[in-house]
Amino acid sequence: MLREIVLVEGAGFCFGVKRAIDIAFDVAKIHKKGVFTLGPIIHNPQVVEKLKKLGVKPLDDISEQRDIKTLIIRAHGIPKSRFEELKNLGYEIIDATCPFVKKAQSIAEKLASEGYQVLIIGDKEHPEVKGIFSYAGEKAVVVSNSEEIPHLNRKIGIIQQTTQPLSKVKEILNGIINSLSEFEEIRIFNTLCNFTAKRLESTEKVAKYVDLMIVIGGKNSANTTQLANLCKKIGVKTYHIEDVKEIESKWFKDIKKIGITAGASTPQWIIDEIIDKIKCL
Amino acid sequence: MLREIVLVEGAGFCFGVKRAIDIAFDVAKIHKKGVFTLGPIIHNPQVVEKLKKLGVKPLDDISEQRDIKTLIIRAHGIPKSRFEELKNLGYEIIDATCPFVKKAQSIAEKLASEGYQVLIIGDKEHPEVKGIFSYAGEKAVVVSNSEEIPHLNRKIGIIQQTTQPLSKVKEILNGIINSLSEFEEIRIFNTLCNFTAKRLESTEKVAKYVDLMIVIGGKNSANTTQLANLCKKIGVKTYHIEDVKEIESKWFKDIKKIGITAGASTPQWIIDEIIDKIKCL
Repeated sequence: MLREIVLVEGAGFCFGVKRAIDIAFDVAKIHKKGVFTLGPIIHNPQVVEKLKKLGVKPLDDISEQRDIKTLIIRAHGIPKSRFEELKNLGYEIIDATCPFVKKAQSIAEKLASEGYQVLIIGDKEHPEVKGIFSYAGEKAVVVSNSEEIPHLNRKIGIIQQTTQPLSKVKEILNGIINSLSEFEEIRIFNTLCNFTAKRLESTEKVAKYVDLMIVIGGKNSANTTQLANLCKKIGVKTYHIEDVKEIESKWFKDIKKIGITAGASTPQWIIDEIIDKIKCL
Repeated sequence: MLREIVLVEGAGFCFGVKRAIDIAFDVAKIHKKGVFTLGPIIHNPQVVEKLKKLGVKPLDDISEQRDIKTLIIRAHGIPKSRFEELKNLGYEIIDATCPFVKKAQSIAEKLASEGYQVLIIGDKEHPEVKGIFSYAGEKAVVVSNSEEIPHLNRKIGIIQQTTQPLSKVKEILNGIINSLSEFEEIRIFNTLCNFTAKRLESTEKVAKYVDLMIVIGGKNSANTTQLANLCKKIGVKTYHIEDVKEIESKWFKDIKKIGITAGASTPQWIIDEIIDKIKCL
């Protein structure tokens, strides 16, 4: 059966993840010992394994190890106090925090220092948000949907987790605008990552065209899950997989057009493997 | 026939207008000659006439007069360049600009100096907006509905004409939020006058309760027209009048509940006269 396979533009590694991985591989070339990443550099076991072989190991807790020399901060970033604690312990810190996340952190810090109550639109359990939150001052709040907007101060500064979907952000902002009379000032910075926004947009277009979507990326990856949810919402049959082994040929019965998208932590080779497999079914 | 008459809370003079008139009467006590207001102090002929008798005359153009000593700036304010020109001409300037308008002017100036493109939500022909606009820098734009939002810079600062209805402001702001991805920063200051907002809100409540609304104020007064339009939109029979003489008894046939509201430039005695007249019909 002749099938059309459409790969979403911008599927896979985003700018920040690619940059962090490149940094990790570069560090591996220079230092041979005592290099660790704080948490896995990426939600992808193959990449983590490759780096391990080169001597760069993931570490959840620095107390696990005594021979730490160099610590790589992954793209999500870390809380401010943690950053300072690690510096004070004398480790060499290689900061691979995504520049978009770094920007959100520094805007949060500036807003807090200027007396704004900072509101972060995002998921409070996500490491990126935990990092940004640490810069946002004592009064900061995290909001993930328009139902949970708390009572706010009269002067608020709003930023977003870089990977939040634009539609959700707009919904929450409209909710806040509806209470305009309660505010003196509402200052909104757009801290959304362009790459993520474009990937979501392109995925939406493809999902509306095809009969089946394959979404590739870690089951625990927030941005991949977001892509899968978007496809399901559109109403197209969707499978969220991590690996080529999960593919079942029965999914493709009577299917003519297949769309492929992938989260920010999915390497190109995994995407390629899956496309090759589908072509041979 | 027993009729219920409901007077809207906050109908009539707003804080800024009352203050400007008080200032004009105070100045009249001190200076006996050469006192002028730049434009009529208020859209109400009776008040203007009273002040004239005390020696305070309205003036549209300073070239009309040679014996100007003192100029009173009315509640709407004036453009910056005009203010400086008058000062340079050596006149004593008594600035009765409403403090809420003054605040909007100074926020506009601050935003422009910090590199924001200033967007003013309001009516570009209104003297207040002309004044605020003069402080808002070269790139400033005035927008009066969500259809006319022009192409904007990536960093915008938004303020409002103090008497704009909240619902219109929200609609325009929601339109801008919908284009969030085109912006780097959207900074919204709430420069709406509380008195005007509350008068609109109370008028809405009364209009929903009564069978007929009498809206009192100048036919050329923007805020009175806004009150009349609001009542008509709600669907209640509405008459916009300036004077007790306009009242016709046939309007009140079979009417049991009558609501009364008045614009910011309507003196209390005119409201009282009208209520007395209706009671006697």
